[in-house]
Amino acid sequence: MSNRKRFINKDGSFNVVREIRGIREWHIYQWLVLMSWARFFAVTLVFYVVLNSFFASLYLINGIEYLSGAGEDGLPPFGTAFFFSVQTLTTVGYGSVSPIGLGANTIAAMGALTGLLAFALITGLLFARFSKPSASILFSNQAIVAPYKDGKGLMFRLANQRKSMLTNLHAEVTASWIGVDEQGRSKRQYTPLKLERTSLTMLPLSWTVVHPIDEESPFYDSSEQSIQAKDLEVIIILEGYDDTFANIIRTHYSYKYDEIIWNVKFNPIFHFDKEGYTVLKLNEISNYSEA
Amino acid sequence: MSNRKRFINKDGSFNVVREIRGIREWHIYQWLVLMSWARFFAVTLVFYVVLNSFFASLYLINGIEYLSGAGEDGLPPFGTAFFFSVQTLTTVGYGSVSPIGLGANTIAAMGALTGLLAFALITGLLFARFSKPSASILFSNQAIVAPYKDGKGLMFRLANQRKSMLTNLHAEVTASWIGVDEQGRSKRQYTPLKLERTSLTMLPLSWTVVHPIDEESPFYDSSEQSIQAKDLEVIIILEGYDDTFANIIRTHYSYKYDEIIWNVKFNPIFHFDKEGYTVLKLNEISNYSEA
Amino acid sequence: MSNRKRFINKDGSFNVVREIRGIREWHIYQWLVLMSWARFFAVTLVFYVVLNSFFASLYLINGIEYLSGAGEDGLPPFGTAFFFSVQTLTTVGYGSVSPIGLGANTIAAMGALTGLLAFALITGLLFARFSKPSASILFSNQAIVAPYKDGKGLMFRLANQRKSMLTNLHAEVTASWIGVDEQGRSKRQYTPLKLERTSLTMLPLSWTVVHPIDEESPFYDSSEQSIQAKDLEVIIILEGYDDTFANIIRTHYSYKYDEIIWNVKFNPIFHFDKEGYTVLKLNEISNYSEA
Amino acid sequence: MSNRKRFINKDGSFNVVREIRGIREWHIYQWLVLMSWARFFAVTLVFYVVLNSFFASLYLINGIEYLSGAGEDGLPPFGTAFFFSVQTLTTVGYGSVSPIGLGANTIAAMGALTGLLAFALITGLLFARFSKPSASILFSNQAIVAPYKDGKGLMFRLANQRKSMLTNLHAEVTASWIGVDEQGRSKRQYTPLKLERTSLTMLPLSWTVVHPIDEESPFYDSSEQSIQAKDLEVIIILEGYDDTFANIIRTHYSYKYDEIIWNVKFNPIFHFDKEGYTVLKLNEISNYSEA
Repeated sequence: MSNRKRFINKDGSFNVVREIRGIREWHIYQWLVLMSWARFFAVTLVFYVVLNSFFASLYLINGIEYLSGAGEDGLPPFGTAFFFSVQTLTTVGYGSVSPIGLGANTIAAMGALTGLLAFALITGLLFARFSKPSASILFSNQAIVAPYKDGKGLMFRLANQRKSMLTNLHAEVTASWIGVDEQGRSKRQYTPLKLERTSLTMLPLSWTVVHPIDEESPFYDSSEQSIQAKDLEVIIILEGYDDTFANIIRTHYSYKYDEIIWNVKFNPIFHFDKEGYTVLKLNEISNYSEA
Repeated sequence: MSNRKRFINKDGSFNVVREIRGIREWHIYQWLVLMSWARFFAVTLVFYVVLNSFFASLYLINGIEYLSGAGEDGLPPFGTAFFFSVQTLTTVGYGSVSPIGLGANTIAAMGALTGLLAFALITGLLFARFSKPSASILFSNQAIVAPYKDGKGLMFRLANQRKSMLTNLHAEVTASWIGVDEQGRSKRQYTPLKLERTSLTMLPLSWTVVHPIDEESPFYDSSEQSIQAKDLEVIIILEGYDDTFANIIRTHYSYKYDEIIWNVKFNPIFHFDKEGYTVLKLNEISNYSEA
Repeated sequence: MSNRKRFINKDGSFNVVREIRGIREWHIYQWLVLMSWARFFAVTLVFYVVLNSFFASLYLINGIEYLSGAGEDGLPPFGTAFFFSVQTLTTVGYGSVSPIGLGANTIAAMGALTGLLAFALITGLLFARFSKPSASILFSNQAIVAPYKDGKGLMFRLANQRKSMLTNLHAEVTASWIGVDEQGRSKRQYTPLKLERTSLTMLPLSWTVVHPIDEESPFYDSSEQSIQAKDLEVIIILEGYDDTFANIIRTHYSYKYDEIIWNVKFNPIFHFDKEGYTVLKLNEISNYSEA
Repeated sequence: MSNRKRFINKDGSFNVVREIRGIREWHIYQWLVLMSWARFFAVTLVFYVVLNSFFASLYLINGIEYLSGAGEDGLPPFGTAFFFSVQTLTTVGYGSVSPIGLGANTIAAMGALTGLLAFALITGLLFARFSKPSASILFSNQAIVAPYKDGKGLMFRLANQRKSMLTNLHAEVTASWIGVDEQGRSKRQYTPLKLERTSLTMLPLSWTVVHPIDEESPFYDSSEQSIQAKDLEVIIILEGYDDTFANIIRTHYSYKYDEIIWNVKFNPIFHFDKEGYTVLKLNEISNYSEA
């Protein structure tokens, strides 16, 4: 059981392998939005070269003599046709090369239309990627089990790493662990954890999320050893409204059993400075001391 | 009664015929967003040809002699004017043909403005179609009536066919059936079905949605025969947040009486592999065996 | 009191006159999105002419001799400069006229940048207007007071005029009337009306919204005369999710006292045709008969 | 304690200083969306000059003789290359200068692609800034403590400064004050204030938000002196749906202890004019008189 992978990766994605039925694993839009920037630019460049090569071939089939100015630009016919296609698809249209006759003009007209449509997709994707709402929530490296009221509580701390304003925050915390079903088969189970508060009107400073460990909590009567045996993982889903994106942002995080520290408490991370401002020390968010 | 059509088609649309009042059946935007891709490109192409023909006619009315370079491109006057309009509307502007005098320049100025506005609509629509949030939820082919706790439950299973992350899922299930109103007229009625749980924090694996058949359920005291007589259809509305679209996606599905299998149970569809990963077998989502 | 204007106009806007403080009555974006199409195109055209005239003046100040090709296009200097500016701002760039020297090139470089930015706003606005989510809900012309269960109910009927799918509908109904405050001054008051149901999972057919008239209702012990004396108006806010816009749409409607018919009932507006399809007769949505 | 800064600035931002960990203080998109317009245009202009200078350098390295038309435009080589780059990146492409040979054509092809992508970002940002949903809520300059029912209430007044329609308003009000924790350290605390009503279906006129001061209220047994001692600040978060932006808008506001007036009441700000219209006097929203 010790080799079970964590369920939520540190980047917030799920650790599930799917045996795929059919080919719809990704919507092409999702694939283009989620790939790395390097890959996105590589795909764009390949698409650009392929599309222009296609139109260059059409011009050659139609006859290079129907491109006026060909031969004067120091290029072989394919080169002339390729760069003429570039100038048409991007709508630069220098005019040093220009189409003659019905065939070349028709190919160019289709090229310009294709270019406008293709660049609408590429530039739309570029901007969608660039403006995609993303949270930059800093979570404490560990969750802790700390004194809380008369008993104990499972706690972790989070703060907004950016200057943007987060409002209407909402947290859901779930414990995931390997239990046993009626037939005695081991099965992953999910228990929502009750929180001291699930919502926060705004997050100017940090938020210490607290799960009070009462009799109904799966942490009641637990220990470091027992939660390891159960392969326990605490899964957090956080959402809030971000002013700058004018959108709700969501983020996931999780603590595996070995990221939960028992019987410590968090150190304070903010104070008032001499001018009366509230100062938040983000780099101390994970700091704790003996309880 | 047996020829009643299903209420929700397998693609999620409603099976209702409207006798239309006035002409507002579709908003033009909706019409352009929902049509097939083939049709969309055909409409675009026709619009492109018609718009350029219109401007070509204006140039001819103004006089072909006001387009410098006309006659040198191996085309009849309308051809020259048409492809000059193409070069203007797409803003390619090779310049091998260019306008002379106030009339031709004014037509060209209007053409360039029209082109920019028209292509803003076309490319905006193209991207809206391309980036439209869509779910790709795989539902089990049948709903089943299976043992549940001490009694029975109506169940169906669903999973995300894509790698994208779905969170905050919410399901609503309604039974639709032909009843009788006070005047004894047959009338389609809707009863919401209570669910074991209506929400799921996240959907990494599959979700078996369960409607416990208790005394209040319309399935209580029902049989395969009685639900056929009532023309029963179970309608599902599912929504959830998709990370990649940064939007809420919604999907509809339904099971007609002949898609409900009695007294069986679903087979498991996930297990842990040797490396500790959770493996989900999507192609077995409909598999069931005798209860 | 009879000359009081209705509070919600038939187009859904409010009938309130504001004495404005400062000049922020409209955000410019709102103004450009809400104006009529005719006005929008007129504003665009004026902006286009003014902007190009501005750049034409700059070229003339810099010297018409720095535009090569000037004089060959059959236009006076301002005309040449104006249409050269058009070709630059729209990025058509035929090249029959082109800039010479630092001044003209710098003006052209600023013109091209200005053009790209300006057209981004214009075309973005155009698409925002075109794709703005809008409901096309057909309300019955009158609300009625009809028999309901053992008593009476205020009812009105609505349906989607378009083929698009509306789901998760939610209605709020408020009665607005002139009452008297503690000092005896007449004052407009608002009372939410309780509804038989406020939400509908989906709207394939019509929805008859019912306010049961019980002791708590402001319609209890009312008559046609008394609601006229109170200048009563029933205000409806309806929202729902539209699949094609991938957005929530909202609409407002209201019934003034003289649009409420007493003691009638609605006629049915759908039936099953021979092929088993459900047929909805939208043009009969307002039909009623004696109760 | 008197030098503590207010927690919410009058422009709605938080008054918190962060000691930053790492460099992710701002997402670049947020930075570009939130900066002033003057700065945005300056950044755009600098980017435009730098990008074209970069491509101009490439053309010079490749050899100015590969740009046909160089020398005829009255510019030194770098000037020719710079403005040729401008014409390529903006896709104007006059053609008075045009590339010769593989090197120059390849640089131009990359320039046109870069230009299309770069301008997609710039124009997308421009439109995102321009169309960003923003509320223009006018709050009364002071909150007041006024007679309410049998006791008192904390009240403030707000109205929409624009003609746009706001619906589904929701207010949350929190009192923030300096209390003392178990260890006797002073600590900022937050108490939500109960409101007479938290939601409003629509906001055609003004809304007087009322917090009834009952035994549970932190204002119970308070005075002007005691709330100053506690550095009290009343924080308001308001959200509503704006028809024109087709989006939910949110706004923040706060009243510090010295902006709360005791024992006064608000004057009415609307009346009916002779034509029966409701008139709202926005400039009197802060007016109050002795209670």
